[in-house]
Amino acid sequence: MPTTETTPSGSGGPPTITGFRVHDVRFPTSELLDGSDAMNPDPDYSAAYVELRTDDPSLSGFGMTFTIGRGNDICCAAISSLAEMVVGLSLDDLRADLGAVATRLTSDSQYRWLGPEKGVVHLATAAVVNAQWDLLARRAGTPLWAFLSDLSPEEIVSAVDFRHLTDALTPDAALELLEGAESGRAERRSDLEANGYPAYITSAGWLGYPDDKIRAQCQAGIAAGWDSFKMKVGRDRDDDVRRAAIVRSEIGPDRRLMVDANQVRDVDDAIAHVQALAEIDPWWIEEPTSPDDVLAHARIRSEVAPIRVVTGEHAHNRVMFKQLMQAGAIDAAQIDGCRLGGVNEVIAVLLLAATFDIPVCPHAGGIGLCEHVQHFSMFDYVAVSGSLEERMIEYADHLHEHMVQRLDVHDGRYWAPKGSGLGVELEPESLATYSYPDGFYWTARAETDRAEVSA
Amino acid sequence: MPTTETTPSGSGGPPTITGFRVHDVRFPTSELLDGSDAMNPDPDYSAAYVELRTDDPSLSGFGMTFTIGRGNDICCAAISSLAEMVVGLSLDDLRADLGAVATRLTSDSQYRWLGPEKGVVHLATAAVVNAQWDLLARRAGTPLWAFLSDLSPEEIVSAVDFRHLTDALTPDAALELLEGAESGRAERRSDLEANGYPAYITSAGWLGYPDDKIRAQCQAGIAAGWDSFKMKVGRDRDDDVRRAAIVRSEIGPDRRLMVDANQVRDVDDAIAHVQALAEIDPWWIEEPTSPDDVLAHARIRSEVAPIRVVTGEHAHNRVMFKQLMQAGAIDAAQIDGCRLGGVNEVIAVLLLAATFDIPVCPHAGGIGLCEHVQHFSMFDYVAVSGSLEERMIEYADHLHEHMVQRLDVHDGRYWAPKGSGLGVELEPESLATYSYPDGFYWTARAETDRAEVSA
Repeated sequence: MPTTETTPSGSGGPPTITGFRVHDVRFPTSELLDGSDAMNPDPDYSAAYVELRTDDPSLSGFGMTFTIGRGNDICCAAISSLAEMVVGLSLDDLRADLGAVATRLTSDSQYRWLGPEKGVVHLATAAVVNAQWDLLARRAGTPLWAFLSDLSPEEIVSAVDFRHLTDALTPDAALELLEGAESGRAERRSDLEANGYPAYITSAGWLGYPDDKIRAQCQAGIAAGWDSFKMKVGRDRDDDVRRAAIVRSEIGPDRRLMVDANQVRDVDDAIAHVQALAEIDPWWIEEPTSPDDVLAHARIRSEVAPIRVVTGEHAHNRVMFKQLMQAGAIDAAQIDGCRLGGVNEVIAVLLLAATFDIPVCPHAGGIGLCEHVQHFSMFDYVAVSGSLEERMIEYADHLHEHMVQRLDVHDGRYWAPKGSGLGVELEPESLATYSYPDGFYWTARAETDRAEVSA
Repeated sequence: MPTTETTPSGSGGPPTITGFRVHDVRFPTSELLDGSDAMNPDPDYSAAYVELRTDDPSLSGFGMTFTIGRGNDICCAAISSLAEMVVGLSLDDLRADLGAVATRLTSDSQYRWLGPEKGVVHLATAAVVNAQWDLLARRAGTPLWAFLSDLSPEEIVSAVDFRHLTDALTPDAALELLEGAESGRAERRSDLEANGYPAYITSAGWLGYPDDKIRAQCQAGIAAGWDSFKMKVGRDRDDDVRRAAIVRSEIGPDRRLMVDANQVRDVDDAIAHVQALAEIDPWWIEEPTSPDDVLAHARIRSEVAPIRVVTGEHAHNRVMFKQLMQAGAIDAAQIDGCRLGGVNEVIAVLLLAATFDIPVCPHAGGIGLCEHVQHFSMFDYVAVSGSLEERMIEYADHLHEHMVQRLDVHDGRYWAPKGSGLGVELEPESLATYSYPDGFYWTARAETDRAEVSA
């Protein structure tokens, strides 16, 4: 869909959000065990996907929530309810008040009761808020990372809800931090456009893969220029060590190897598990225990040092990240593109991380997550932390072919998107095929299932 | 609906869950500003209500999620999805494995992704899990508190998911605690049946009430035998102090006065706010800041002592309560009847609280919450903590007339329910009137609204 900066034909005024469409889209990834981990054995990567439409027929904004299958319909229902709240808003007003939509959605007291700021309603908030930022960036004709990087420090601060943050970060402190990073913006932007952003790959060690597939994925990763690899652990300790040793032997001693336990262990067990893995020299242990457990992460980190402890893909809001940082519980903040309440809350966490001098290494994979987080990391580098040190974006090579704007990841790096907006618009054919339950794929599969039952 | 212990007529085997009905029920409480507080100015108390049906037509189980209006439909959708998972289960099997339903619902990895164990899916889990306990207790012909109090320590432990708890509480430690409380069960049960359970009342100081209504409510409360009162604060500091002084002057120096800020303040502001209220001698400050913020509550508590700090109505799972207790952040745990994932997770928190020697003072009010939590506190007294010290159940005198089993609260105490089950079955007439949007009340109101628009 082309972008436009022209005045819409309809009303003669600035473009206005006139309506929305929500789609339940599910990809049958469980058939190949892509994405299998200790907590999630059979995910069907899915998107609760929203298009915000305007009175300019050439201008829509797209956002989504990532889920792993069942329950995607519940997220769609929540998105439909929240999207009603932005119908009628003009893009000029939204551009003038960058916090307006996020505030409106998170402060509705009746929806807030269902969280607050967590679970289905917050996932839905992310989709609608991000679709609004997509609209603003598309209208400006710039990729979201550049749109954000062109904002003034005052505008960036105006997008953030500082409620429940001020014991760690005040608006004044945030402004000072952003002003301090202003001088180097142009050089860092040039660096980014010339050299890309560092990344690591997670396609090697999904739990469901047999050993020979793990070896082949490592070899393919090295050949493709990757120097940082992540594998899943958390099932059987001895088997984890055995599989990790395979990966380490394939990638050699000098490449980074991260391990991801996906929340399955209690504190003492997590500590013992990491210590057993120490021999393969892990760069970090990810999600060693419950994502809600700030105190447990702090204790694990203190006991497994110098191995880094990271979490965040299930940290549901800025208050959780604030505590993880205050408690010294994490070595990197793994923000997710659509579990936090959209761009506005992502900015809050980037500011917190810069304040605590903790690198942001976003969670990605699934469907659409790589597309989201590249913008946030690039904006962080240009305008917030100003640093690439110990920073990497996760990458998994799944499902990118369904996006209209194709991700550019090669030689172990993300390359700055050039298309306008957030870049999560789905190909019309993908939408027609994988819409659930009425898309071509799912209706055909239902027919096959029926045939097998009757055979 | 009568209970039965007979074998069902249909199959000849033990009763089996054959299906369910889900109802979106909303009461127009916002019209009277009942329940208004600093975060929630205009709640419409609502229930996402489920009936689990069995092949015995005289035996159903009822559960619900409490919401404050918009989004109740989203909870209903989630309940429908989760309830599918219990259809076909036999009550004999459920009685033999008291953790089975809770585990099945919380370990479905695809629904878990939408939390985990928080937000809409966890609220829906509570409704289905509690409906299952209602079924078991109705079939046994006993009220839920007595059903729970008759379980052996081993059975109680078997109902609990200890995942992510064992750094604070192991199954062995829980068993030891419960065995230690076994000897006094019979006497405490007699005491409970003779003397009731202590309570406090929250009908005096809703934020939306004018001063003369506050005075009248205090006087009515004293006349009815109440000795502990709670009021809402958190809007304007001076106005809060002024209103609190009115309540204190009405109830005198010897009755307890609790204040509830409903999450609106940041740490420093919350501390200053409590200190300003010190002159009216508050028994506790409730929800001084974000319900997710364990560290903030710990800091506020250390700074406002000896005024107690309490929270929990929005603490979404056992891991949050564990941390609040580990961090020394709370003086009482305010469990909610259907925000935790049902009876099983409530038991986990009761065990944690007994371990940390922290009283449980449940959150109630709304619709159905008083009915829920009385069972949990009474079970706690008989079989877990064995104590009434500093323990009180919240009471608000709203909407109890819609329940088939009528709550018995008088002389400042809850009196032990005698009907079987959990006791949250709605009167058929209430269901017909307040089902949303098709009940008599809502269709009539929609017609009135239309008439006013066209007038």
